[in-house]
Amino acid sequence: MTETIIVSPKEMNDTFTSILLANGFQLEKAKACAEVFTSNSIDGVYSHGVNRFARFIEYIKNGYVKINAESKLIHAFNAFEQWDGEFGPGPLNAIKAIDRAMQLATKFGIGCVGLANNNHWMRAGYYGWRAAKAGFAMIAWTNTIGNMPAWNAVDRRLGNNPIVLAVPYQQEAIVVDLAMSLYSYGKMELAQMKNEQLPVDGGFDSAGKPTRNPSAIIESGRFMPIGYWKGAGLSLLLDILTTILSNGMATYEYTKQKIEFASQVFIAFDLSKTHNYSSIANRIEAIILDYKDSIPESPGKKISYPGEHVLETRKKNLEEGIPVVKKVWDEVLSLRFDV
Amino acid sequence: MTETIIVSPKEMNDTFTSILLANGFQLEKAKACAEVFTSNSIDGVYSHGVNRFARFIEYIKNGYVKINAESKLIHAFNAFEQWDGEFGPGPLNAIKAIDRAMQLATKFGIGCVGLANNNHWMRAGYYGWRAAKAGFAMIAWTNTIGNMPAWNAVDRRLGNNPIVLAVPYQQEAIVVDLAMSLYSYGKMELAQMKNEQLPVDGGFDSAGKPTRNPSAIIESGRFMPIGYWKGAGLSLLLDILTTILSNGMATYEYTKQKIEFASQVFIAFDLSKTHNYSSIANRIEAIILDYKDSIPESPGKKISYPGEHVLETRKKNLEEGIPVVKKVWDEVLSLRFDV
Repeated sequence: MTETIIVSPKEMNDTFTSILLANGFQLEKAKACAEVFTSNSIDGVYSHGVNRFARFIEYIKNGYVKINAESKLIHAFNAFEQWDGEFGPGPLNAIKAIDRAMQLATKFGIGCVGLANNNHWMRAGYYGWRAAKAGFAMIAWTNTIGNMPAWNAVDRRLGNNPIVLAVPYQQEAIVVDLAMSLYSYGKMELAQMKNEQLPVDGGFDSAGKPTRNPSAIIESGRFMPIGYWKGAGLSLLLDILTTILSNGMATYEYTKQKIEFASQVFIAFDLSKTHNYSSIANRIEAIILDYKDSIPESPGKKISYPGEHVLETRKKNLEEGIPVVKKVWDEVLSLRFDV
Repeated sequence: MTETIIVSPKEMNDTFTSILLANGFQLEKAKACAEVFTSNSIDGVYSHGVNRFARFIEYIKNGYVKINAESKLIHAFNAFEQWDGEFGPGPLNAIKAIDRAMQLATKFGIGCVGLANNNHWMRAGYYGWRAAKAGFAMIAWTNTIGNMPAWNAVDRRLGNNPIVLAVPYQQEAIVVDLAMSLYSYGKMELAQMKNEQLPVDGGFDSAGKPTRNPSAIIESGRFMPIGYWKGAGLSLLLDILTTILSNGMATYEYTKQKIEFASQVFIAFDLSKTHNYSSIANRIEAIILDYKDSIPESPGKKISYPGEHVLETRKKNLEEGIPVVKKVWDEVLSLRFDV
């Protein structure tokens, strides 16, 4: 089994910050970037937190992520703006974009920012938690390089184009963060490593048969879209919307570049500008209470709302420290001296 | 086998119009409503066209659909408005709402209308085609009564909450119109009638086992969400967003009423207000060209974009007439004299 160690949130954050500083980041940007990778790890999304950090540094060294680039306003029309990310750090550009969408929403009720020429924004959910905790409802999505075939096809011309929807809930948020592929590459790799089958068909094997075997799916590259043809169709529309609203590149263009650049769209709703605003918290609470009253399939089965597991993981990781694959952490530590 | 007859679009439209007039509709409203039901049938979405018309009339007779009700503006904040549908005819309220969202987008770049206290809007895609053909991109969704369980649950506390995303394409549109349940009740019923299995697991049987048997799923009521837990989570978020943005009722409240009332949210983007607007048609074309270059799984398999089948069906039905189950048409015809 893979050896896991425990890293405290503070140690992780400090380590990330110092490595980013050593790679030329300005202090404020290093701190903000470290916070995203640490926060994603605290929330249990290791694939877009600590497990991804070394590749982020590699992208900086390769010049794909331009650490001093600042996103620029290209076009504004009242509640709608288009920004160019100039290939700066993905999470920093994305934070600026969702914050701007919230500003626009404060002024117009709803606000939308299209962000072109960005790098990978890491975890979609991060921006959902951020907006919802500020009292906004939000919808945002990204396109990606091609990593999923069209329905009835074998080659990967669609992105998995994660989308996030978020609303405030109590002192926290309800956040659904989902890719158009049923399982991520990381999940499949993990199942493969553990020699496990997936719980449901997660793709097709090279003969075109639906399968739960992660190795067969990784080999064929034919990841299963959510809802089969439905998720594939949704992925195409999300890519088109991203492209035309951000004026950025489409999945097929990013695929040609073979680097994980991306464009994003952020929509924020200022709930304080709605009728009956004061009732909203109670209305969401009532929906969740009814939802939680669902009759479970069996006594052990828990009915969770999207984001509830995140809160549990966050609490545990904050109290007990963040579990990290030792090899991953060793690689991160080695980056301190490898600049 | 079920006997099917062919009805010309004109005959269908005239029949619907005359029945609506006989039920007290004003001429313009009768025409507009007949157009929606006819258009949905021409496009092959019979479940929300001709097959649903008799129930629409029944709802009018029961007073659920209030034929003279006009939706009212409740609250406006720049690009965001909330309207009350006053339980008027669902499609008429929805048309007015998407048209208003487009007006707001023309002024603000993006526009959003929340519509509370509406009736069933019939087919989500209708509003997507309408907006896209007017040159707008759009996203809209509805909540519904509970017709799908939460993940790990057996009772139906989630709606299938259809969502539509649309963009202009050539002289037509690319439109994805999808419910959060993999198969609609209508699709299952059809498979049951034909004594066929579903192509993939469409739900659970009463013992909690995933199954392709439509009768078992109809019996248990446990419809499968798209992407399993993912579609269930998305459904919950869509319901919450609908409720708080429209100030309308939530799925659990509509479920209690046992009538198919609904609330909706419409978001329109005025593409002519984007940077590089003149390039958009070509950029979408390039995405579709690449998509169409996909390598099919087998030579017979077609790679279609969302909406492409609709165009084919539309062409066929306009040329050859609309196939209608004879029993359904007989029931419609009987309504002419049953007012």
